[in-house]
Amino acid sequence: MKRSEPLRIALLASGAGSNLRTLLEHAAAGRLPVKPVLALSNNPEAGALGHAKTFEVPAWSLDSRSLPREDFDAAMLEAIKEAGAEAVILAGYMRLLSAFFIKDFVGRILNIHPAILPSFPGAHGGRDALELRPRLSGCTVHFVEEAVDSGPIIIQAAVPLAPDDNLDSLMPRIQALEHRIYPQAVLWLAQDRLRLEGRRVRLLPPRSSPSANTALGCAGESPLGPWLVSPALEDF
Amino acid sequence: MKRSEPLRIALLASGAGSNLRTLLEHAAAGRLPVKPVLALSNNPEAGALGHAKTFEVPAWSLDSRSLPREDFDAAMLEAIKEAGAEAVILAGYMRLLSAFFIKDFVGRILNIHPAILPSFPGAHGGRDALELRPRLSGCTVHFVEEAVDSGPIIIQAAVPLAPDDNLDSLMPRIQALEHRIYPQAVLWLAQDRLRLEGRRVRLLPPRSSPSANTALGCAGESPLGPWLVSPALEDF
Repeated sequence: MKRSEPLRIALLASGAGSNLRTLLEHAAAGRLPVKPVLALSNNPEAGALGHAKTFEVPAWSLDSRSLPREDFDAAMLEAIKEAGAEAVILAGYMRLLSAFFIKDFVGRILNIHPAILPSFPGAHGGRDALELRPRLSGCTVHFVEEAVDSGPIIIQAAVPLAPDDNLDSLMPRIQALEHRIYPQAVLWLAQDRLRLEGRRVRLLPPRSSPSANTALGCAGESPLGPWLVSPALEDF
Repeated sequence: MKRSEPLRIALLASGAGSNLRTLLEHAAAGRLPVKPVLALSNNPEAGALGHAKTFEVPAWSLDSRSLPREDFDAAMLEAIKEAGAEAVILAGYMRLLSAFFIKDFVGRILNIHPAILPSFPGAHGGRDALELRPRLSGCTVHFVEEAVDSGPIIIQAAVPLAPDDNLDSLMPRIQALEHRIYPQAVLWLAQDRLRLEGRRVRLLPPRSSPSANTALGCAGESPLGPWLVSPALEDF
């Protein structure tokens, strides 16, 4: 099936929303075949809502402390369906989603996590890594399943972590990669190029060159340090 | 303290011993300031013992099934001390070490594990990764503590893992990096450049340029694919 229309996406964020902003920028610039139809937050003060306003994307928010989780998620799901969203992009959304929500969008909810999953799942991936002090950290985009930060993995990036790193020095290194791999994963979703086979996520070649092999990965150096991404980033 | 003598190392292996062979090659070529004084195995049929013979390193083996673990480890420790080893290098040694053994060589036992720890500890790092299907895999050199595959991390490498990978395609990609990061870690140990601070392992600059900053990491491409290592590999 070739999509002629852009993929209608809803974006959920709880905080400053730097990944949400990056996605909205790419969409506005015509680099992603997506139409952001709604930005949602469980925090009416979230910076993410300001970004939605900047990019003229309708926003929805409700203080999640005012309702039981299932009621809150039902209200959110109703708003998402009313907006006609076909996929849900979690961009720093810091709450678990109810099972009925996930079931309704199974295979169409993406999340990004600031660690090389399965290492350091949970709400404090960066902080937990700084406690254990591995030498590599990174980020992961995955399909959402019911367990926290599990679900089939679409793309991952690794960056170094140094003995003197703290959150202020480590997180920018991770976020620089988040802002590259999340738009890439959303592009692949919008191009209908991701195939789920159990826990495997197979990336189909672009329709423009159906015999191409998608590359295993790519490595590089940025001003913040070296990095590795798999599968390889594409130009877009 | 400047070492004038090479570091006397004992190497433990249970299997084919490709990391042991790589270390013996580097030592024989004068690229590592170490003297391998003994190669030990819990498996008298281990390929590792053949490599020891090739490089004229004394070998010791005993079938570990013939003794309780603590008796076996006591016999091994006695042989290691008689050989005058100052550090113990685990190179595919597939058994847990007794607490008294680890205590005797604390801060002077290194291990290599085929995963980006803390992901996929245990005896089947590669196989477990193939089950969960992250997009990045790799290897870790760490100081040995009593828990399995824990202990402060010295150096890590990451490589891509693809949906079609199996053990036969993945392990060579990981082992190519093991053969680069393990000699590097042993070199740093022999140069007395590793400092343990809680869980952090600080790498001191080389004595030849004491004001140098050790680099955060390095990335590259090999015929097997791209990779990332932290801290950066040095030429030796």
